[in-house]
Amino acid sequence: MTLEIVSQAKCFGGTQATYQHASTATGTAMRLAVFTPPQAAHGPVPVLWFLSGLTCTEENFTVKAGAQRLAAELGVMLVAPDTSPRGEGVPDDADKAYDFGLGAGFYVDATEAPWAQHYRMRTYLEQELPALISSTLPADMTRQGITGHSMGGHGALTIALRSPARFRSVSAFAPIVSPMNCPWGEKALTGYLGPDRTAWRAYDACALIEDGARVPDILVDQGSADSFLTTQLKPELLEAACATAGQPLTLRRQDGYDHSYFFIASFIADHLAWHAERLLR
Amino acid sequence: MTLEIVSQAKCFGGTQATYQHASTATGTAMRLAVFTPPQAAHGPVPVLWFLSGLTCTEENFTVKAGAQRLAAELGVMLVAPDTSPRGEGVPDDADKAYDFGLGAGFYVDATEAPWAQHYRMRTYLEQELPALISSTLPADMTRQGITGHSMGGHGALTIALRSPARFRSVSAFAPIVSPMNCPWGEKALTGYLGPDRTAWRAYDACALIEDGARVPDILVDQGSADSFLTTQLKPELLEAACATAGQPLTLRRQDGYDHSYFFIASFIADHLAWHAERLLR
Repeated sequence: MTLEIVSQAKCFGGTQATYQHASTATGTAMRLAVFTPPQAAHGPVPVLWFLSGLTCTEENFTVKAGAQRLAAELGVMLVAPDTSPRGEGVPDDADKAYDFGLGAGFYVDATEAPWAQHYRMRTYLEQELPALISSTLPADMTRQGITGHSMGGHGALTIALRSPARFRSVSAFAPIVSPMNCPWGEKALTGYLGPDRTAWRAYDACALIEDGARVPDILVDQGSADSFLTTQLKPELLEAACATAGQPLTLRRQDGYDHSYFFIASFIADHLAWHAERLLR
Repeated sequence: MTLEIVSQAKCFGGTQATYQHASTATGTAMRLAVFTPPQAAHGPVPVLWFLSGLTCTEENFTVKAGAQRLAAELGVMLVAPDTSPRGEGVPDDADKAYDFGLGAGFYVDATEAPWAQHYRMRTYLEQELPALISSTLPADMTRQGITGHSMGGHGALTIALRSPARFRSVSAFAPIVSPMNCPWGEKALTGYLGPDRTAWRAYDACALIEDGARVPDILVDQGSADSFLTTQLKPELLEAACATAGQPLTLRRQDGYDHSYFFIASFIADHLAWHAERLLR
């Protein structure tokens, strides 16, 4: 397996690259963006995964979040995967809606036709891509953290809760904390997994915590002016699940911030510091 | 004259907004992006103009440069105008080329048909927009700085050299230092101003300096891996003109950096510090 360079540029003394590779998990070409900090010239560096939200590709976080500055200072690699398989033969939502199909993989392994063939983002992110990065980039896979935004916050939380040994740190920006309890999630999980809600629980951070999953601690930032706050994101559900289970959670409600990358940019330094504290010690 | 809010979001404790207004200079609706730092709640703040390059709108700098973080710390307003008039009735390059017409106003007042009617970016930026900002936003117009990228670096240098009393600070990222001596510039100035090269000198930083224009000092960053370095940008021409004229210039050649916003993001903090030193003292 190899990573083909689509583009690369020097950035804060490191390298910001977009790679492409043939994925066996999804059966498609997949792209990802990787920031390699200057410290990687001297040996493997810790890895922070960023999973993006609905409609995004590997590019949004890479050009909009301003994360490279501090990643270059701290010596952390940033890996931003795409949000779904793409390309010829990959089915999309019948109405081309933004919240299902292309750009909306929800980080699941689909079991329903016609999605099951290509929509295998869980296997891609849990198995194939870590192995590929480990074998091709100067990444220290014993020091991984994960974060994400919205649908990607859901991805980060659920992947970390299912694989606590893999990650030293987890955080999220405005995550979908319980896809089982919001319209975006119900549409996606019904479509990809079918109507049996017991199968959904592996893809719901609150349900995973109820079912016993634990990580050392979680940082979540949520803007109070986020237009999806009460209908889709519902941080109070995560707060309740963590309180009941004794799962440590730092939930910060950020007054006046919306769902945009201006919100992410405003707090990315806090998240990088949170991860660095756990990845670099 | 009023600024209509197209969108706004909280960002680093301040506000990132996109505004629209009817421009008398261009005879079109014009958009601009403005970051208002939190300090503006307590009184007018200094203004840093950022002029963008070919193909850009008011959005590129706003979402890609990561400038708001330090602007919020320093208490500086960021104003990013569009790069040309747009809309129904505004002519474009016959071949829809990226380097003339829409997105390529070159910060001139065109005198040739059919461009002269709408392509009046000089008047827009030197007269109309400063007056509009002064009357509608918490901006201290006695403390203005200007910077820009590529075509916008050309804009920043030439506007500052023509109006040294207006600006306390000027810098540029990979500017077109002499449009009279590169293909982008020759095409644009021929198109907008006609074949008489004496009329071009007001729009050429090197010619302005040769003709006696001076500013206190200039900061320029230029990436060594910029694919336009030798054909279009030619920083050595500015270096020579400044040396001959005794115009102070800090020209930094940044090893390995290209023409992208990853280059701008890497050095925007240095430029903000340069401007703040001159705007805040």
